[in-house]
Amino acid sequence: MRSELQFWFEFASTYSYPAAMRIEAQCAVVGVQLRWRPFLLGPIFAAQGWNDSPFNIYPSKGRYMWRDLERICMRAGLPLRRPTQFPRNSLLAARVACAAADAAWLPGFVRAVYHANFAEDRDIAAPAVLAEVLAGLGVAAEPILAAAQSSDVKQRLRAHTDEAMRRGIFGAPSFSVGEELFWGNDRLEDALAWQRTRADRVG
Amino acid sequence: MRSELQFWFEFASTYSYPAAMRIEAQCAVVGVQLRWRPFLLGPIFAAQGWNDSPFNIYPSKGRYMWRDLERICMRAGLPLRRPTQFPRNSLLAARVACAAADAAWLPGFVRAVYHANFAEDRDIAAPAVLAEVLAGLGVAAEPILAAAQSSDVKQRLRAHTDEAMRRGIFGAPSFSVGEELFWGNDRLEDALAWQRTRADRVG
Repeated sequence: MRSELQFWFEFASTYSYPAAMRIEAQCAVVGVQLRWRPFLLGPIFAAQGWNDSPFNIYPSKGRYMWRDLERICMRAGLPLRRPTQFPRNSLLAARVACAAADAAWLPGFVRAVYHANFAEDRDIAAPAVLAEVLAGLGVAAEPILAAAQSSDVKQRLRAHTDEAMRRGIFGAPSFSVGEELFWGNDRLEDALAWQRTRADRVG
Repeated sequence: MRSELQFWFEFASTYSYPAAMRIEAQCAVVGVQLRWRPFLLGPIFAAQGWNDSPFNIYPSKGRYMWRDLERICMRAGLPLRRPTQFPRNSLLAARVACAAADAAWLPGFVRAVYHANFAEDRDIAAPAVLAEVLAGLGVAAEPILAAAQSSDVKQRLRAHTDEAMRRGIFGAPSFSVGEELFWGNDRLEDALAWQRTRADRVG
């Protein structure tokens, strides 16, 4: 899988929103294979001594981020309504994404969850909200939500988060190409360029 | 001064290095007036409870930054030698930059200090190193180094740092256009685009 770009995303993460909305199209344009890697920032932040988002802990950083996100969304034509709760609990949504690893509807699900959180200010921690998102994709919600709570899927998400830590990931979105790491929505183009150069080298 | 872009830089800051090396040329290309605003991150970090660079406090962030900086410098054709001391004390260099606010050699001095710190691994806290940098620019070092230690110049640097805090600046490099703030070397193009749109609107 040397020509693969891995997209490490967290449903509560603000900058992951614009990245998630454009990554599939961007990869398609340059012919790069995309792998969706849901993970949780909570355990990674906790290991750094944070029990909240750094955007809440450091107010000037937070104020800047919301304004910056507004500019990014405006330029990308993405709707943005600042969530009344931030960060939202993303555990169940991340588990659904893990359960759907091989499903054709995974990309649509990821985008719909970000839209619910950041464009509609909906509580993505609520099973009813996720059920509606799944129904909107034509997916029977009940079996998927049940699978998302299986110990197998729970373990899969823990393994993703462990792997993220091992790779040195400390924020989201992150992109990896082999062992090379790129952090931030604004590094997607760099990651794609890196992937292509690498493919030329090894291919 | 509505058509002005302010460049907030800190001589110890890694990402300020590539920004400092390209900002004058970038502003000239698009016809934007540039104002150099040296400030200190130390007091701003201290207000957030940090007594060191976050790149030292959070090792995974630090490891990523050094690799990312390497990629950025490689692409920009900038030499990079990782400083054996990080962050370096930038107080005296910042004071010299304040003392030289109206000097034609200020941009050259700024670039030469970054080069000394990040390409040559020299101690920019040492008066002898700064004297050599000044001599290299054809500037008599002694009177400038003396002026840099005057209470007037010390106060000017404190005022810059206070203004940075008031503007919500929490890292370097930052760019401001009016009250609009942009953070990070990778936001220079956004700041320039913002400045031009704004000039069209008000001009």
